[in-house]
Amino acid sequence: PRTISLAVIPGDGIGPEVTAEAVKVLLAVTGSSPVEFDLTEYPLGAEHWLATGETLPEKTLEALKGHDAILFGAVGAAPGDTQIPSGLIERELLLKLRFSLDHYVNLRPSRLYPGVDSPLAAPGDVDFIVVREGTEGPYAGNGGVLREGTPQEIATEVSLNTAYGVERVVRDAFVRAAARPRRHVTLVHKHNVLVNAGRLWKRTVEKVAQEFPDITHDYLHVDAATIFMVSDPSRFDVIVTDNLFGDIITDLAAAITGGIGLAASGNINMDRTFPSMFEPVHGSAPDIAGQQKADPTAAILSAALLLRHLGFDEEAGRVESAVAEDLAGRDGTRRTTAEVGNAIAAAVP
Amino acid sequence: PRTISLAVIPGDGIGPEVTAEAVKVLLAVTGSSPVEFDLTEYPLGAEHWLATGETLPEKTLEALKGHDAILFGAVGAAPGDTQIPSGLIERELLLKLRFSLDHYVNLRPSRLYPGVDSPLAAPGDVDFIVVREGTEGPYAGNGGVLREGTPQEIATEVSLNTAYGVERVVRDAFVRAAARPRRHVTLVHKHNVLVNAGRLWKRTVEKVAQEFPDITHDYLHVDAATIFMVSDPSRFDVIVTDNLFGDIITDLAAAITGGIGLAASGNINMDRTFPSMFEPVHGSAPDIAGQQKADPTAAILSAALLLRHLGFDEEAGRVESAVAEDLAGRDGTRRTTAEVGNAIAAAVP
Ligand SMILES: CC(C)[C@H](C(=O)O)[C@@H](O)C(=O)O
Ligand SMILES: CC(C)[C@H](C(=O)O)[C@@H](O)C(=O)O
Repeated sequence: PRTISLAVIPGDGIGPEVTAEAVKVLLAVTGSSPVEFDLTEYPLGAEHWLATGETLPEKTLEALKGHDAILFGAVGAAPGDTQIPSGLIERELLLKLRFSLDHYVNLRPSRLYPGVDSPLAAPGDVDFIVVREGTEGPYAGNGGVLREGTPQEIATEVSLNTAYGVERVVRDAFVRAAARPRRHVTLVHKHNVLVNAGRLWKRTVEKVAQEFPDITHDYLHVDAATIFMVSDPSRFDVIVTDNLFGDIITDLAAAITGGIGLAASGNINMDRTFPSMFEPVHGSAPDIAGQQKADPTAAILSAALLLRHLGFDEEAGRVESAVAEDLAGRDGTRRTTAEVGNAIAAAVP
Repeated sequence: PRTISLAVIPGDGIGPEVTAEAVKVLLAVTGSSPVEFDLTEYPLGAEHWLATGETLPEKTLEALKGHDAILFGAVGAAPGDTQIPSGLIERELLLKLRFSLDHYVNLRPSRLYPGVDSPLAAPGDVDFIVVREGTEGPYAGNGGVLREGTPQEIATEVSLNTAYGVERVVRDAFVRAAARPRRHVTLVHKHNVLVNAGRLWKRTVEKVAQEFPDITHDYLHVDAATIFMVSDPSRFDVIVTDNLFGDIITDLAAAITGGIGLAASGNINMDRTFPSMFEPVHGSAPDIAGQQKADPTAAILSAALLLRHLGFDEEAGRVESAVAEDLAGRDGTRRTTAEVGNAIAAAVP
């Protein structure tokens, strides 16, 4: 059997609980397949920082690069925490991984599964993917502060956008659209205001579109995109957008398709120069941590994305079917995190 | 009677139609009040640019400064237009007015009026205002392009945030919260990623909050804010946020409270060094222009904000009541733009 070397970063809060269920399902689905997992757990996150002062040591980053893929739970301190500098773990661990491992495709599927409640009265048939750029834009960590704390303070944030970075993610969106029945790409940006980056994104979409003559494409300003997300979400097929707009609209997309408890994501390096990383869209939710209250579905669906990325399409499909089956049967009865994981794991073989 | 010198910029597309109704209602509500309007119309917008090559001539800007307030319709070319550089009118006219006239409070109330349909299944009692910064942030027009059109292109967008600019709008939000029953301010930002601007915004809110001991406040990342906007919008009272996040969440807020056909806004200079400007949140909608299909309600509610800004609270309240009455009685019968305006105008005196 092919052996997959998998790094597991459970992280903080509910991260370990939901990751345990994702691992359980991975092992169950591959039990009958010619693949086995060699798991290595990495204790990283807020707890680890408190204990050691390390976010992501160079040595650990190098070790992570040696794996075939990474399964990531969730990281981040509790909102009111005063020991941990705000956003430190998110930036120095999560974003550092995305940038260091060149995860330029932040893939976030949104599907309203049968039986799942949407806050929308008439959501329609929602099934789209967001291809969010993951390695540049306003997330580049560029900018600075002058005269901090004085009435003359000025603080800047610089969004960096390169032809290289935009073109590869736009092409990825078209490739993904080519494999979907509706074959449609929507660029979401704000080119009427952010003219420099906007021109680059628009021109790149026009250029790449020529390589895909049977894929249609259109454009929406990010503000208008949020309107359609609640008024007509079934119009979307493949959305391609920048790092920050992608962050915003994928949380909204998760909300209208049953909540972030169900939203999966992949941080993908399509060139495979470094391992890709799969994680639920949700955070560490410290308020319910350790109570077996978290829904592991997002983590489990992220594991399905991991399987597909590694070429195990059939196994990925089985996980998604098991999740769909479980979701269709949910009747409001409270189940523990492990009970949900057990049910899905039992349904995959 | 006090005479108000009002500049009217009907603009493009449906702008002239909806503005005509807003003017109609303004004249009706003040018919019985000790106030009269002296109207001056300014032909600006895409049509005007095509005819003259002018967006906002210095002379016109100076003339506008002489008025007590500005009523603005909508501007912008049709999406497919090839004669007008994309975004030119929006930037060189609309944003130029907001920046030149120092409209630092972009006020956008969101209220779900009785009888109005929301796309949300259970919206609850939605009544909040967004205080969007209007004169800096990513809208500053800062940034540039290097090696345009080559594979080595880099395009930047710079968000500029100043203590001066942030503090005045944050204070405005607290002042507005003090006049509302729930007395709560929510800062929306993304300080875990946009650390420089984020620190300034957070610190400023903490500082200003000390001047308002009986106002509570909290913080939400912009992505989380979009989730609450569809899952629990009644939790919001006063939101204060930057120019770009404000742009995004106010379109979403409009969508969940009946659509942008109902969403009003004020571009307000609280220091009154220059006239404030009131406009519907919607755009020029060229596809339905000139057909009397547009809903003038957003323009009329913007006129109510104008009245309130000029100190005519009683008149503003009468316009809002007339709108509420009209909305409650809507039964799906198609009415022309003028018919809606007539009905509301008839109900105000
Ligand atoms: C935690 C945070 C840095 C992260 C982001 O902004 O990308 C999160 O919101 C996400 O969407 O994965
Ligand atoms: C037309 C555009 C420049 C404008 C903005 O982004 O502010 C509009 O979307 C708005 O919200 O008033």
